[in-house]
Amino acid sequence: MSQDSNSTPSLQDIIGHAKEYGFVFPSSEIYDGLQAVYDYGQNGVELKNNLKAAWWKAMTQLHENIVGIDAAIFMHPLTWKASGHVDGFNDPMIDNKDSKKRYRADQLLEGKAEEYAAAGQADKGQALLAEMGRLLSAEDLDGVRELIIAEDIKCPVSGTTNWTEVRQFNLMFSTQIGSVAEDSSVIYLRPETAQGIFVNFLNVQKSGRMKVPFGIAQIGKAFRNEIVARQFIFRMREFEQMEMQFFVRPGTEMEWYDKWKETRLKFHQAIGLPADKLKYHDHDKLAHYANAAVDIEYEFPFGFREIEGIHSRTDFDLRNHQELSRKKQQYFDADLDENGKPFGNYIPYVVETSVGADRLFLATFCNAFTREMVGEGDKVKERIYLKLHPALAPIKAAVLPLVKKDGLAEKAQGISDSLKSTFRTVYDDNAAIGKRYTRQDLIGTPYCIAVDYQTMEDDTVTIRHRDSMEQERVAISELKAKIGQAVALERILEEI
Amino acid sequence: MSQDSNSTPSLQDIIGHAKEYGFVFPSSEIYDGLQAVYDYGQNGVELKNNLKAAWWKAMTQLHENIVGIDAAIFMHPLTWKASGHVDGFNDPMIDNKDSKKRYRADQLLEGKAEEYAAAGQADKGQALLAEMGRLLSAEDLDGVRELIIAEDIKCPVSGTTNWTEVRQFNLMFSTQIGSVAEDSSVIYLRPETAQGIFVNFLNVQKSGRMKVPFGIAQIGKAFRNEIVARQFIFRMREFEQMEMQFFVRPGTEMEWYDKWKETRLKFHQAIGLPADKLKYHDHDKLAHYANAAVDIEYEFPFGFREIEGIHSRTDFDLRNHQELSRKKQQYFDADLDENGKPFGNYIPYVVETSVGADRLFLATFCNAFTREMVGEGDKVKERIYLKLHPALAPIKAAVLPLVKKDGLAEKAQGISDSLKSTFRTVYDDNAAIGKRYTRQDLIGTPYCIAVDYQTMEDDTVTIRHRDSMEQERVAISELKAKIGQAVALERILEEI
Repeated sequence: MSQDSNSTPSLQDIIGHAKEYGFVFPSSEIYDGLQAVYDYGQNGVELKNNLKAAWWKAMTQLHENIVGIDAAIFMHPLTWKASGHVDGFNDPMIDNKDSKKRYRADQLLEGKAEEYAAAGQADKGQALLAEMGRLLSAEDLDGVRELIIAEDIKCPVSGTTNWTEVRQFNLMFSTQIGSVAEDSSVIYLRPETAQGIFVNFLNVQKSGRMKVPFGIAQIGKAFRNEIVARQFIFRMREFEQMEMQFFVRPGTEMEWYDKWKETRLKFHQAIGLPADKLKYHDHDKLAHYANAAVDIEYEFPFGFREIEGIHSRTDFDLRNHQELSRKKQQYFDADLDENGKPFGNYIPYVVETSVGADRLFLATFCNAFTREMVGEGDKVKERIYLKLHPALAPIKAAVLPLVKKDGLAEKAQGISDSLKSTFRTVYDDNAAIGKRYTRQDLIGTPYCIAVDYQTMEDDTVTIRHRDSMEQERVAISELKAKIGQAVALERILEEI
Repeated sequence: MSQDSNSTPSLQDIIGHAKEYGFVFPSSEIYDGLQAVYDYGQNGVELKNNLKAAWWKAMTQLHENIVGIDAAIFMHPLTWKASGHVDGFNDPMIDNKDSKKRYRADQLLEGKAEEYAAAGQADKGQALLAEMGRLLSAEDLDGVRELIIAEDIKCPVSGTTNWTEVRQFNLMFSTQIGSVAEDSSVIYLRPETAQGIFVNFLNVQKSGRMKVPFGIAQIGKAFRNEIVARQFIFRMREFEQMEMQFFVRPGTEMEWYDKWKETRLKFHQAIGLPADKLKYHDHDKLAHYANAAVDIEYEFPFGFREIEGIHSRTDFDLRNHQELSRKKQQYFDADLDENGKPFGNYIPYVVETSVGADRLFLATFCNAFTREMVGEGDKVKERIYLKLHPALAPIKAAVLPLVKKDGLAEKAQGISDSLKSTFRTVYDDNAAIGKRYTRQDLIGTPYCIAVDYQTMEDDTVTIRHRDSMEQERVAISELKAKIGQAVALERILEEI
């Protein structure tokens, strides 16, 4: 009953609600779980599928010059040589010899810098980070170790500074493919989906007769052996990406970068994330392949964090694949330049938009989680519901007979059956109607259809709206069209 | 122009068409591919997504007592101990010492049995297979080797009988998770999706308040290090399954087995596979966990092969998980038995329906591929088109201006734009209209909308129907509803 009840939920509230109501379960929970891996439950999978469908349609259906693909998780190992992941996708690790615990060396130093800042010595912290950046860029791992010792950083477990040397640890998962001993080879689980698009660039361009500028979109799993995986489904070892690589004429990439930056923000607003919980975060330090990069951040219970990245990747990837595969990755541009000559052959530049599907799920879920006080005087009580966009809600409508007797149950079941080939509808006659409304509120069902005695007379029902709790009387014959339209993904697409 | 042109396409026709028109590409083709792994192209991904959505809705939306989940590919390794995969998911392998080639020992013997049959000595072949079965069941691998030598089976490469011993080769892919040396452990890429459902059985049952009988459906990737992977996307090392595990009261499993056998066949017919190309194939030999099993087979260019399996799995999986995890996997059934007492606690029995998504894709694609002679007299020519159910087609409508001039192009572009938030529509003004129709035929687009001079006068267009090539005149204002209804997945759901 405190004033806090309308406040932002904590991450623990979110994790608890997600598990209790079938959105997210710890993976292999009966075996005490697998760290940083989660399973989507019966309501979670519907919400996630709806988010994926909204993104997919927004990217491909709304843009005639963007098509999708679905490349395999397994790729030829040279792919990851070309992309730089074999040599460069590392974290610097250090072990404490007493506790036998392993840490990311950079995170130990960042922690120290934060301590300085907290103690009013922000300058000292900044200097430390700058020095660390210098050493890591120079791949001076001995220097990093010396810095940790010089700063007297202790293992939180053993409390000692008895550190091993710093080593690079590659974050890719590897496995062996093929059964014939001499033919079997190490392959990797892809650490990003983008390369599946790059290696198919010419296949799609040619078979689809695509003209630059055009894009290739993909949704799929990627895997990273994260050392410190945390914050629920925000950073997992197995995760899903929704990426689009947009191929443009070199020199035009900044226009497209700006356009996609804007378009992608609109998408997040169209699915229901409020403008004041979203912001851009420009990268100060660019990845080796990028000439511009920005994150779209959402304000999670643990602060503003990236849900999407928009990167101008230049021709880095296609050029490296061309070099390693010895297959030309060029496009012939027949459009005429200012001198009336065709632009001719070039390797396109790429602007990438990359969303973490699990992060978008978490943002949507956190944003939907609503706790408010309802009623008056002595009857004030807390109400929790998920304020999901109707097109994203796992269940669209619940049909509830006021009572089971006098034919109301059969009537309600008939209505439920008549709607279910159009949208996901459930029937529930178990418990008092108020309790049944609450059940649907907790999983975000936008419409509850109540069948009462008047229904038996005039074939009308009430629709109760989740957010306002208001009820309206509607003819049964209107339900399919009325709710069908409100829950269609088209509603989201029209807002982008 | 031969009479053969209406005949069943060969697998080579299918592979060629799939690649040329953006349905399926060899994976990592620029690096000369990765054996038995494929990527779905811009049209393939749409067809596959539509098939997956049809299955998902048919299983979950049409059945209130079936819900979905999306479990991770990574699972706790004890899962695969409980399921029997760690100990039993093996193929017997033998190497030829001269050629260094590796073979499946059972396949060498099966080949020999076929030779006997071809030579009119079927009995001898049968006897050989029976003996092999006995040896493998007894895990007598030395006996298998001796049998190969006794039958004088030669390596096809070296031509010698210089064989190594026979060894069991596990088909699961393994990798290491975790970065802390002493904590890292071997995990497997799941070889089937079913276990993700079993370990979540109680989470879903409790959080979803599910009552037996109920089902849990899932679509996801699985991985098997197949020794001999072949027949295009029919047997891949990375593949996708669509599975539903239906939990029932012990003793009622055969009723449900029969029901699902029938329901699943109807599904395949509803998506357009003809009855005479589908058949049941009862398993003679049951897997250790099953008490009844049947395949639904489709007639591929290479013969009738499994696209779906329906298995009565008893309580094998839940019982083993209970034993290994020491977590009760029981359900309390409050329904009353014939003596008026609740059925009480039990481990449910399971009836499984398991479709290979890639196989269903291949069946749908093969079935849709149509080659026919059209025209008369001197003008007879071959026409190829994909006769896909409109709800499954990658692109629903193409808008084609008869000519680009006189405002027709702009008019057509406007129509295309007005439809695209409802269904995937493309605009094409490049080449003669006949050629543009052909382009759409080749990828299975059910409706071509032609904009002509009459359109400019009365706002009507022609719709050309892919299969009949008939054209009808329709008002622009009717297009969205008319085509929208014809291409909705609801059309498939209504037929099941």
